[in-house]
Amino acid sequence: MIAPIPIDIGSALKTLVLVFDLVGTFVFALSGAASGVKRQLDLFGVLVLSFAAGNFGGVLRDLLIGATPPAALSDRRYLAASLLAGLITFLWYPAVRRLRSAVLIFDGAGLALFSVSGAQKALAFGIDPLMAALLGMLTGIGGGMVRDVLLSDVPVVLRSDIYAVAAFAGASVVVAGDALQLPATAMACAGAAICFGLRMAALRLGWHLPVAGPPGKPAPKPDTAKEDPDR
Amino acid sequence: MIAPIPIDIGSALKTLVLVFDLVGTFVFALSGAASGVKRQLDLFGVLVLSFAAGNFGGVLRDLLIGATPPAALSDRRYLAASLLAGLITFLWYPAVRRLRSAVLIFDGAGLALFSVSGAQKALAFGIDPLMAALLGMLTGIGGGMVRDVLLSDVPVVLRSDIYAVAAFAGASVVVAGDALQLPATAMACAGAAICFGLRMAALRLGWHLPVAGPPGKPAPKPDTAKEDPDR
Amino acid sequence: MIAPIPIDIGSALKTLVLVFDLVGTFVFALSGAASGVKRQLDLFGVLVLSFAAGNFGGVLRDLLIGATPPAALSDRRYLAASLLAGLITFLWYPAVRRLRSAVLIFDGAGLALFSVSGAQKALAFGIDPLMAALLGMLTGIGGGMVRDVLLSDVPVVLRSDIYAVAAFAGASVVVAGDALQLPATAMACAGAAICFGLRMAALRLGWHLPVAGPPGKPAPKPDTAKEDPDR
Repeated sequence: MIAPIPIDIGSALKTLVLVFDLVGTFVFALSGAASGVKRQLDLFGVLVLSFAAGNFGGVLRDLLIGATPPAALSDRRYLAASLLAGLITFLWYPAVRRLRSAVLIFDGAGLALFSVSGAQKALAFGIDPLMAALLGMLTGIGGGMVRDVLLSDVPVVLRSDIYAVAAFAGASVVVAGDALQLPATAMACAGAAICFGLRMAALRLGWHLPVAGPPGKPAPKPDTAKEDPDR
Repeated sequence: MIAPIPIDIGSALKTLVLVFDLVGTFVFALSGAASGVKRQLDLFGVLVLSFAAGNFGGVLRDLLIGATPPAALSDRRYLAASLLAGLITFLWYPAVRRLRSAVLIFDGAGLALFSVSGAQKALAFGIDPLMAALLGMLTGIGGGMVRDVLLSDVPVVLRSDIYAVAAFAGASVVVAGDALQLPATAMACAGAAICFGLRMAALRLGWHLPVAGPPGKPAPKPDTAKEDPDR
Repeated sequence: MIAPIPIDIGSALKTLVLVFDLVGTFVFALSGAASGVKRQLDLFGVLVLSFAAGNFGGVLRDLLIGATPPAALSDRRYLAASLLAGLITFLWYPAVRRLRSAVLIFDGAGLALFSVSGAQKALAFGIDPLMAALLGMLTGIGGGMVRDVLLSDVPVVLRSDIYAVAAFAGASVVVAGDALQLPATAMACAGAAICFGLRMAALRLGWHLPVAGPPGKPAPKPDTAKEDPDR
C-alpha cells in the first residue's frame, strides 16, 4: 500500500491564488489591449493600456493605503502577464474578439479575485472596514477606469450594469468575515463566489442599476455595454 | 445670580470647522452628482462622482505630501456626506438644480474652508510655504478636477473665472500668517473670508482671467461657466 | 606662470545636470502651455498645464516609489521654470510656435535627461531593475500624458512615433550599467545620448511603431504627430 502524498493545503491554495491573480491580470490586460487596438494606438500604446488595465486597480489601492512601491512594480510576473496579453491582442485581435464570451467569464473571475484580495490587503494595512471594502472594489474596477480615462472615455463602470456592485459585495464578505473573526480563507472563497455569481447573473439576466437622466433626454440603453467584449 | 456657563472657544471652533468641512464635502459632492446625472450615469456612477468631487482635493493633497491613508478614507462622515449628496441629487435632480444660487454660495464656502485647511495640513507636514499655498489651492479645486477628468471633460477650473485664484489667495494668507508667526486661527478665518469674498465678488461681477486664443479663433465666452449650477 | 585653476568635475557635472533638468522642465512646460493656449484655457489653466507637463513625470514616479513629497514640490526652481514657460507662451504664443524645431530638439534633450535621472532615482529607492527602467521612461513621458489627460485627449505618446521607446532605451542603459557595476556617470551620459539620438533619428526619418487597426478601418497616419510643435 502506498502512503498518501501529504498535500500542503495552504501552499496549494497560495499557488491557486497566484494563478488566479495572474489570470485576472492577463484577462484585464486583454480588455485594455483590445480597447487600444480599437482606438488604433501603436504597439507601445497598446502595451501601456494592457499594463494599466491589468494592474492599476491594485496600484491605486496601494497608493491610497501607502503601500509603496505597489506590488505590480515589485513582481515581474504581473508585467509579463500584462505584456503577453497586449502582444497577443495586438497580433491576433480578431481571434481575441471572437473569444469574447470566454473573456467575459474570466473577467468576472478576475474581478472576484481582485476585489477579495484588495479588501484583504487594505484590512492588513489597518484601514477602516467599510473603506477596506470600498478599496477592494476599487482594486477590481480601477484598472478598467484608468484604461478608459487614458482613452478619454467616461469609465464604462460608471454607466452600466452590475459590475462594481458585485465587486463591493465580494469585498464586503471578506470584511464582514474579518470583523466576525471567521476563517479568512473560507470567507475569501465565499466573497469571490458571491462576486463572480452576481456578475455572471447580471450578464445573463441583463441586470443593471437605475439611471437618472435629466428630464427631456431619453435614458441610454444600459445593457449595450454588457456585450462589450473588452470590458 | 446664575454663574455664566464657561464656553470652550477652542472646542466650539473645532466643531464649527468640522461642520463647515462636512458641508463643503456635501456641496462639492452635489456638484459631482449633478454632473453624473446630467451625463446619465447609473446610480453607482453618480455616487462615485459624488465621492470624488467631495473628497479628491484632499486625497490628492494627502498623496502628494505622503499622508497616507488620506483623511477621507479614515473618517466615515465624509463618505456619508458624499453619498447623501449623491442620493439626494439622484432622486431629486430638478430640485437640486433649482437651488443653484444657494449651492454656489455654499460651494464658495467649501472652497474657502478646503483651501485654508489644505494649506494648514501641508504646513504641518513641513512642506515649503509657497508649495503649501498651492497645495491648499489644490485641496479646494482638486475634487472638481477629478470629477471633470472622470467625465472626460477639460476641468472647468482651467478655463473660467476666478475660482482657483480665490483658493490660492485664501491659502496664501494662512501660509503668510504662519511665516510671520501670527495667530493661526485668526489667519485661517481671514484666509477663508478673503477666498469666499473673492469668489462671491467674481460671481457677482463676472470677473475672469484673461484667455489667450491662438490667432484666427474667436475667444470663448468665459462667463458662461459662472452660471453652471454644478460647479 | 599661473597655476591652473582646479576644476571640480563632480560639482561641474552636478550643475550641468541641474541646468539640463531645469531646461527640460522649461521645455516640457512650453509644450503644456502651448496645448493650453490652443484649447483656449485662461491664464490659470495655462499655468497648470505648464506645471503638469513640466513636472508630473517625476511626480508620478515619486508617488509610485513612495518618495513623498515629490521633488517638484520641494525645490521652487522647477515651479519657477514651469511658470516662466507658461507666461512666455501665454504672452507670445505665435513666437513660441515659430520656434517649434528648436523646441523639438530641447524636448528630446529633456526626454533624455528625465529618463536617465528617473531611472537613477528609482534604482536608488531599491526598485527592481526592469521596473526602474520603466519608471525612468515614465519620468520622461508622464508629464505629457498628464497634460493630455487634463485636456481630455488620448495621450499622444500612445499613438505616435518613437518617443517612449527612446526614453526606455536611455533608462535601460542606466539600469544595465548599474547591474554591471559600470561607472554611473558614464552610463548616464551614454543613456542620455542614446535616448536623444534615437529621438532625433525618429523625428528626422519618420520612424514609428506599428499600429494595429481593427479590420475595416483605415490605419491613421502616425507621422502627423511628429510635426506637432507642442509635443
